[in-house]
Amino acid sequence: MKIQPLGDRILVKRLEAETQTASGIYLPDTAQEKPQQAKVIAVGAGAVNENTGKRNEPAVKKGDTVLLNKWGGTEVKLNNEEMLIINADDVLAVIE
Amino acid sequence: MKIQPLGDRILVKRLEAETQTASGIYLPDTAQEKPQQAKVIAVGAGAVNENTGKRNEPAVKKGDTVLLNKWGGTEVKLNNEEMLIINADDVLAVIE
Amino acid sequence: MKIQPLGDRILVKRLEAETQTASGIYLPDTAQEKPQQAKVIAVGAGAVNENTGKRNEPAVKKGDTVLLNKWGGTEVKLNNEEMLIINADDVLAVIE
Amino acid sequence: MKIQPLGDRILVKRLEAETQTASGIYLPDTAQEKPQQAKVIAVGAGAVNENTGKRNEPAVKKGDTVLLNKWGGTEVKLNNEEMLIINADDVLAVIE
Amino acid sequence: MKIQPLGDRILVKRLEAETQTASGIYLPDTAQEKPQQAKVIAVGAGAVNENTGKRNEPAVKKGDTVLLNKWGGTEVKLNNEEMLIINADDVLAVIE
Amino acid sequence: MKIQPLGDRILVKRLEAETQTASGIYLPDTAQEKPQQAKVIAVGAGAVNENTGKRNEPAVKKGDTVLLNKWGGTEVKLNNEEMLIINADDVLAVIE
Amino acid sequence: MKIQPLGDRILVKRLEAETQTASGIYLPDTAQEKPQQAKVIAVGAGAVNENTGKRNEPAVKKGDTVLLNKWGGTEVKLNNEEMLIINADDVLAVIE
Repeated sequence: MKIQPLGDRILVKRLEAETQTASGIYLPDTAQEKPQQAKVIAVGAGAVNENTGKRNEPAVKKGDTVLLNKWGGTEVKLNNEEMLIINADDVLAVIE
Repeated sequence: MKIQPLGDRILVKRLEAETQTASGIYLPDTAQEKPQQAKVIAVGAGAVNENTGKRNEPAVKKGDTVLLNKWGGTEVKLNNEEMLIINADDVLAVIE
Repeated sequence: MKIQPLGDRILVKRLEAETQTASGIYLPDTAQEKPQQAKVIAVGAGAVNENTGKRNEPAVKKGDTVLLNKWGGTEVKLNNEEMLIINADDVLAVIE
Repeated sequence: MKIQPLGDRILVKRLEAETQTASGIYLPDTAQEKPQQAKVIAVGAGAVNENTGKRNEPAVKKGDTVLLNKWGGTEVKLNNEEMLIINADDVLAVIE
Repeated sequence: MKIQPLGDRILVKRLEAETQTASGIYLPDTAQEKPQQAKVIAVGAGAVNENTGKRNEPAVKKGDTVLLNKWGGTEVKLNNEEMLIINADDVLAVIE
Repeated sequence: MKIQPLGDRILVKRLEAETQTASGIYLPDTAQEKPQQAKVIAVGAGAVNENTGKRNEPAVKKGDTVLLNKWGGTEVKLNNEEMLIINADDVLAVIE
Repeated sequence: MKIQPLGDRILVKRLEAETQTASGIYLPDTAQEKPQQAKVIAVGAGAVNENTGKRNEPAVKKGDTVLLNKWGGTEVKLNNEEMLIINADDVLAVIE
């Protein structure tokens, strides 16, 4: 059983707070717009570019740790794990 | 008697809650934006791309099980079965 | 005396409720957004595509039975028959 | 003395109610959005298409009887006759 | 001392009411959206078209008498004369 | 120490009221939307045109006296002088 | 541990008020829209241009001192330092 996101959508799993702190990136409670760390589970094939007719090349890949906008995305539970389907535009940065 | 969706539209039939649970994908009641599983009944030929003049290639096909945004779409009853006409953009992912 | 719609517009005549039921497609009263069956009377030549300079090819033809969005369109009475001028985008599907 | 509309604009003269009825097209009082019959007096040369650099070809010509959206347009009085300057998009259909 | 409008902007001088009436074009007080006659003083070189990289060709020239939308434009006083800087789109028609 | 505006942005210094009056261009207090004279201090290299991939050619140059929209722009103080960073679109005209 | 911004996004570190004053650029308290000085830490590879299919060339580079819009951006703390992920459009100017 697998969820395959379509177009520019990405399936991610949020990282727990402790995991986030261990990574050395701490997201302050006082920030008005808090990003959130997540692990990429599956990536869509990319939306088709309306001008060139080719697919957008995804900027992230399965296994990447990413920073997300706090807002946006659709929650889904797969085999008892909570996940999130987001648009590629909602990924701010990759954590290397 | 058949309903043939136009352009990027898709005709789907919602899956019952029990079917959804059996698939291992559970949609939590507390989620603000709950997706919904559905079976694809008929797919439009794709909207014509304004730049290339070719049709968008549909990302799903008849028989696919898909995750939908909860909102959007138009309800219609065909031969006593409730269905939904949606835009291709409202399909988040395919369940494989 | 004839009404020739311009661009992507279409002239349709709504089907009566009894006709709709006989067709096996029933539109539930409880649906928030009820589509409506109609017969296509006349079709515009298609709007000119801004990029290619060619006309959009109409997706429906005279005599088709179609499903419309309930909203939108402009009412007009021609030779004592009530009709509706709609945009091509307001046609959801063709009933075959 | 002449008013030459620019771009996609069109100069029209509304037809009186009695003229409208005589034409066999009656516009019901109860319709929420009533179109209006008018005679085309002058047509702009067409707006320049941003992509091809050519002018849009006007869909109506001087002398045509047309159906307008009730809203929109700018009133002007020329040699004691009330006229209306409208955009080409506000013409729904030609009456033949 | 000269004001040279940029891009698609045009510098105009409004015509007085008596001048307007003399021209045979009368603008009724009751009209909701009253156009206004003006004389063109200076014309911008035209905005650069984003697609072709060429400048839009201005539709009016210095000395033209034009009909303007009542709204829009920026007032400026040059050598004691009140003028108006408007966008080319706010010119409805040329009076010939 | 220098501020180099990016893209289509322009760095200007507002002219004092007395300077403005001396130029023969007077901006009436009663005007709803008062433009403002300013001197151009530095000009961005121009935004990259999305279609051609080339930079927009700036319409003004260092030293020009320009008319600005009253609104818009960001205030900044450089070496004790108040300046304004504006978009090229907020320049209405050049005063020659 | 490194944060790599995606597309047109940029990672910056705000400069302290004293640093800002020392630079000779003072940002007045009374300004309605106060820009803010920051140091560029990391720059995305540039968003892919939809028309040409090539990446936008970033206008700033690592180490640049820039003026930002006060609004916008997402706060993040990396190795105990507060940083900000912004869009390239939110950079007004480079301070040289």
